[in-house]
Amino acid sequence: MRRYLFRGRNMALIVKKFGGSSVATTEKIMNVAKRVLSEKQPGDQIVMVVSAMGDTTDDLITLANGITKDPYQYAREMDMLLTTGEQVSIALLAMAFKSLGQPAISLTGPMAGMRTDSVHTKGRIKDIQPKRVHEELDKGNIVVVAGFQGADEIGDLVTLGRGGSDTSAVALAGALKADSCEIYTDVDGVYSADPRIVKNARKMKEITYYEMLEMARLGAGVMQPRSVEMGKYFNIPIHVRSTFTNKPGTIIREDYTMEDKDFVIRGVAHDEKVAKIAVLGIPNTPGIAHEIFSALAEANIDVDMIVQSIRNIEKNVTDMVFTVATDDLAQAKKVVDKVADKLNAIAVLIEEDVAKVSIVGAGMLGNPGIAARMFGALSKAQINIDIISTSEISISCLVKGSQLKEAVNAIHDEFFPAKA
Amino acid sequence: MRRYLFRGRNMALIVKKFGGSSVATTEKIMNVAKRVLSEKQPGDQIVMVVSAMGDTTDDLITLANGITKDPYQYAREMDMLLTTGEQVSIALLAMAFKSLGQPAISLTGPMAGMRTDSVHTKGRIKDIQPKRVHEELDKGNIVVVAGFQGADEIGDLVTLGRGGSDTSAVALAGALKADSCEIYTDVDGVYSADPRIVKNARKMKEITYYEMLEMARLGAGVMQPRSVEMGKYFNIPIHVRSTFTNKPGTIIREDYTMEDKDFVIRGVAHDEKVAKIAVLGIPNTPGIAHEIFSALAEANIDVDMIVQSIRNIEKNVTDMVFTVATDDLAQAKKVVDKVADKLNAIAVLIEEDVAKVSIVGAGMLGNPGIAARMFGALSKAQINIDIISTSEISISCLVKGSQLKEAVNAIHDEFFPAKA
Repeated sequence: MRRYLFRGRNMALIVKKFGGSSVATTEKIMNVAKRVLSEKQPGDQIVMVVSAMGDTTDDLITLANGITKDPYQYAREMDMLLTTGEQVSIALLAMAFKSLGQPAISLTGPMAGMRTDSVHTKGRIKDIQPKRVHEELDKGNIVVVAGFQGADEIGDLVTLGRGGSDTSAVALAGALKADSCEIYTDVDGVYSADPRIVKNARKMKEITYYEMLEMARLGAGVMQPRSVEMGKYFNIPIHVRSTFTNKPGTIIREDYTMEDKDFVIRGVAHDEKVAKIAVLGIPNTPGIAHEIFSALAEANIDVDMIVQSIRNIEKNVTDMVFTVATDDLAQAKKVVDKVADKLNAIAVLIEEDVAKVSIVGAGMLGNPGIAARMFGALSKAQINIDIISTSEISISCLVKGSQLKEAVNAIHDEFFPAKA
Repeated sequence: MRRYLFRGRNMALIVKKFGGSSVATTEKIMNVAKRVLSEKQPGDQIVMVVSAMGDTTDDLITLANGITKDPYQYAREMDMLLTTGEQVSIALLAMAFKSLGQPAISLTGPMAGMRTDSVHTKGRIKDIQPKRVHEELDKGNIVVVAGFQGADEIGDLVTLGRGGSDTSAVALAGALKADSCEIYTDVDGVYSADPRIVKNARKMKEITYYEMLEMARLGAGVMQPRSVEMGKYFNIPIHVRSTFTNKPGTIIREDYTMEDKDFVIRGVAHDEKVAKIAVLGIPNTPGIAHEIFSALAEANIDVDMIVQSIRNIEKNVTDMVFTVATDDLAQAKKVVDKVADKLNAIAVLIEEDVAKVSIVGAGMLGNPGIAARMFGALSKAQINIDIISTSEISISCLVKGSQLKEAVNAIHDEFFPAKA
């Protein structure tokens, strides 16, 4: 960690984010305060970013449901309601520090200078002016900031949507030019594969922003992509670590330090929530891909893996196969059926027992044999590959859903062999 | 009610304040919204001021007690915590209006322009800049404002202390130049005496600010003095009325309209929480009153009724008798014992079975017989008067606590005879 001299002292500015389960009770809040103080180095400046206590947000939504079935239609008022959750946490955590003799002060998102757009319940950070945060740090306070929230131009409260507290923390770390941003979670880092599926999954010491983003896009749930993007934008190292232990976790950063360059790939990601749609026997004329996918785009449905293959070269008839998220399947089917009719397709087939397994790693760029090793591992395990797609730093295979666990393990064993 | 023309329409601007018990559940919040809409005249502009739901404030204090035994020592953080209570209510009430088809918007105290000093948990309003409130009213919204709160110069949240929501409502009505401020409570107005004690107590149609302040000072609990002072300052009529009925309540204003001038006194107030202290047999030299009462003032103890009487004119020895609030008695006794020792007093006697009964009315100013009628009524009921004190618009008598109920009724019967 970069440490700098300030008023003659060697000190660091660290942003630490604790989620809702870490502050679910007053006892847990006291534990967070004690833990932070036990790790604090003399002269360190610390900014805490916290979420609402445990189920508070759900409780507030239940209250709103007592007024109306669909409270989110009143998005501005939902933000007015939901922002109280973090406000309660920050007040209590600041009290906890003070009761332990540590000067501390709580600031709401707006007080900390978090300026957002006006898209209520799904706001995006536009600008951060953390003048007050600096002032309070300079007075010797630990500054406790409400995550997940900011204010728009006219001062209305806006929440940041899913993963918002992580985004708050990383963005604030960026604006403060912090030395690092620590995200405390119930997992202790980023693993080479989901530890619930792969027994030998390894905790990575480091991973790049790009790789983490690709892992998240391909199904790994540790960090929301927005906060990783924010880290990349500000070039702030994000340390993902456990609430429950003192062990180091995984640092998401621009590039590796030497020691951690051992593996050409960083992880095996998987996604079970995919479905395959095949439009069979359509005339292979210019514009048919456009016809299908623009109809889906209009319906706001993301299409992922796409394969076009020739069914009958003499009749110039082709098949179009692609995947969508399971959640979008029903609507996608409707859209595709209509287009297929128009194109005189032979049939539209749906397959739901599919899953996507992917490898991610910036190292594969200069290593041409990686794809072959992945396919080989699947082949050796008797797993058939349905569709293949690639990006700059990832390769994905669509396999049978029932074979997913086997597939993830086979690939993981290939790239992360068990230590002898 | 004064009604004025605005953009060619006959309209009124009304501030309505609902307390915590009126918004204790989402069902009650819906009822408040429905009631307000049912009474709303076309073109009326309405500002709602609401408190936290039911026991919310107590629940938040309980949470804080989970962190520390004395959370109020961290007053700024308590304000950060407690202000969430009203924020929840305003969001839900705004949703309730919207779900009934009425455009509405919630504003926190600071958003509504409530500027306070920085005395956390006991803040006072310094200034109100209700620009946003006017803007939202002009858009056709019912504006729902969080009571009990504001922000200080640096934007920190400050609560107003006891009765704060009433004060918010009246002050906001003043700053908005509202036509009236309606305070909805669980009583339906201001009575000529406590209806729990006097069966024939009458609801007053009107009462002046001065009289209401004097009633409050002398024990009547309907309105906190601060909000009445605020109404007087802005000359805003305060309509105290019931949450549960549509009947008119009592209007607190500068002066009466003709019809309601029937009674020379406005009410009979009483206070059971008083105790009498008698310092007997002290030398009647200049400065002894100063000696006793400056010692009490230093200990921050309010002294109420004071009588000095000659015990022995030859020895020039005197008795000093006065009352204090029961809550202050223990400390007052300590202070007085010390002074009495110094003055070689014969004894210090304490009497706790005392109570104060008072009559209040601006009408007594030009009516010299009022005091005599009060004493006569007590005498006829065989009630002994211990101490008498008077102000411009009130007369108070100290009586035996066990005779208080009788005393209040005797005086009330004298001035408010039962209708034939």
